[in-house]
Amino acid sequence: MSKVTVFGAGSWGTALATVLAENGHDTLLWSHREDQAQEIQQQHTNEKYLPGTVLPQNLCATSDVASAVEHAEVIVMAVPTKGIRETCQKIMKTLNRQIIFVHVSKGIEPDSLIRISEIMKEELAEEVVKDIVVLSGPSHAEEVVKKHPTTVASSCENLESAVVVQDLFMNHYFRVYTNEDVVGVELGGALKNVIALAAGVSDGIGFGDNAKAALITRGLAEISRLGIKMGANPMTFMGLAGMGDLIVTCTSVHSRNWRAGNLLGKGLKLEEVLEQMGMVVEGVRTTKAAHQLADKYEVSMPIVQALYAVLFEDQSAKEMVEKLMLRMKKSEMDGQY
Amino acid sequence: MSKVTVFGAGSWGTALATVLAENGHDTLLWSHREDQAQEIQQQHTNEKYLPGTVLPQNLCATSDVASAVEHAEVIVMAVPTKGIRETCQKIMKTLNRQIIFVHVSKGIEPDSLIRISEIMKEELAEEVVKDIVVLSGPSHAEEVVKKHPTTVASSCENLESAVVVQDLFMNHYFRVYTNEDVVGVELGGALKNVIALAAGVSDGIGFGDNAKAALITRGLAEISRLGIKMGANPMTFMGLAGMGDLIVTCTSVHSRNWRAGNLLGKGLKLEEVLEQMGMVVEGVRTTKAAHQLADKYEVSMPIVQALYAVLFEDQSAKEMVEKLMLRMKKSEMDGQY
Repeated sequence: MSKVTVFGAGSWGTALATVLAENGHDTLLWSHREDQAQEIQQQHTNEKYLPGTVLPQNLCATSDVASAVEHAEVIVMAVPTKGIRETCQKIMKTLNRQIIFVHVSKGIEPDSLIRISEIMKEELAEEVVKDIVVLSGPSHAEEVVKKHPTTVASSCENLESAVVVQDLFMNHYFRVYTNEDVVGVELGGALKNVIALAAGVSDGIGFGDNAKAALITRGLAEISRLGIKMGANPMTFMGLAGMGDLIVTCTSVHSRNWRAGNLLGKGLKLEEVLEQMGMVVEGVRTTKAAHQLADKYEVSMPIVQALYAVLFEDQSAKEMVEKLMLRMKKSEMDGQY
Repeated sequence: MSKVTVFGAGSWGTALATVLAENGHDTLLWSHREDQAQEIQQQHTNEKYLPGTVLPQNLCATSDVASAVEHAEVIVMAVPTKGIRETCQKIMKTLNRQIIFVHVSKGIEPDSLIRISEIMKEELAEEVVKDIVVLSGPSHAEEVVKKHPTTVASSCENLESAVVVQDLFMNHYFRVYTNEDVVGVELGGALKNVIALAAGVSDGIGFGDNAKAALITRGLAEISRLGIKMGANPMTFMGLAGMGDLIVTCTSVHSRNWRAGNLLGKGLKLEEVLEQMGMVVEGVRTTKAAHQLADKYEVSMPIVQALYAVLFEDQSAKEMVEKLMLRMKKSEMDGQY
């Protein structure tokens, strides 16, 4: 049994804390909102993020950072990309021993263009970080709390720490596989949200499954092209954190990024979409970052480019997808079309 | 303008004939049923296979093999795998010049374990075959006749013939890309039906998108392992005829193989499922062939194996999927789990 603190009580943080508590670990869930922590601790629910779910009786919650840090032998970071720096800074104030950090966020920081584990390394002192492990894969929170079979990758350059995290989470419905390609796992997780937005746009316009399958296929090709230039193992993109996560995000009604894209495809403006969603849509910021990365690494990323034009340059979503489909390359192996 | 005959007036043959006719080609659709040929020719409908669709006025149909062969500068074969040999034999009786054959069937012959183009080469004399081109990709017929954007690969060892076929079909909603890896394209198209059956089983049991994404991901991995041993280009499996077709078949309500799997997952026996479907479910025969191929090439194919046990050894579908999910490999890169 281990003592684990999960920072972030959104749907995914709550689902992961549920798995840990059910595995018998002494699990504490930190929320930045006192009332939410109380709801989880006392009523065993998190109605905003996992409506209808009864959380384990042994899952505790707090909004106090110091006691959350004090509790932890392992810290799981489940906050949006935008909140990573601030949460790390809060943790640093009281953490005085070396522990394993797990992160489950899927994004890339615009402008700095660094991955989540790199942001964390900037904010956390070396003395307190044993290793940073990334947990990623096709895993909608809503299905995990229903105990539907789910598989994810636990990724770390230091395989030993990946195994520690694997052992924490593994049970009969939540299957964890180790992986040593942190760059590939983080990029796959972040960039699939961009393709999910595009897939949502295609569906929102009223196109069918043929068009969406083409977008997903070409989307993974452009993610892989960029990832390889950034040092990732190409095989990672064919695995759970690449193709697996991409498919689930592009085809599931649970996916926020798909839903946001779908509204864009129906003709709403970005501000209207974000207002209607009321939750973080990671893919929007990631599209900006991916657009900058394509420039920096000189990689052709037509889907990213097209989506960027829709989100930030006021282009018509319908025209964008049509243009994408009509690109006139002749051979499939050209690497782009 | 070319003169093209499409053999086989199922949903896909009819949709492809529609594309050709709309592109201005003199297109003749051959059906083995006289009444169906008359319906297409006179009422411009094919209610059994594409209900509600109005076919082009310039699309002609016949059930006479000799005149269908006589008409053709190019023959498109759109019959089920089981009917390939017989249809080729019929064509051979009157064909006396060398033309390009296109095939769009997705299967492998059990026992002989050969691909469709290999079956065709056995049945057609060398003197009448200029080349055999495979057309394959994520392409539900129902969406093509609605002119929803669709992309496919035109594959031939002789690129020149692949380009001829590309030019025949290409238009603003039907995008054709050339590819020279016939082995990979044929295997990808055939084997994805096995994975679609498995994905349907998972959905039928009531599992969610996380489980299905894992099955699709691991499914493509086992297809690729076998394909590479059989001489395919690994990149093909990441393309339209591999991943693209696999995704659409596993996630679309239009997919027969998914629907058949879904019924199996709900507890029906194979005979009951086939009776209820009333159409050819290619994946069932392909599972048998894939099971034999895994043996022959000594490739680990756990999904194929599990599905074979359900279809032909009366194993419980639920137990099979659960066993698959619980396989205890530790690392994602082990190549199997």
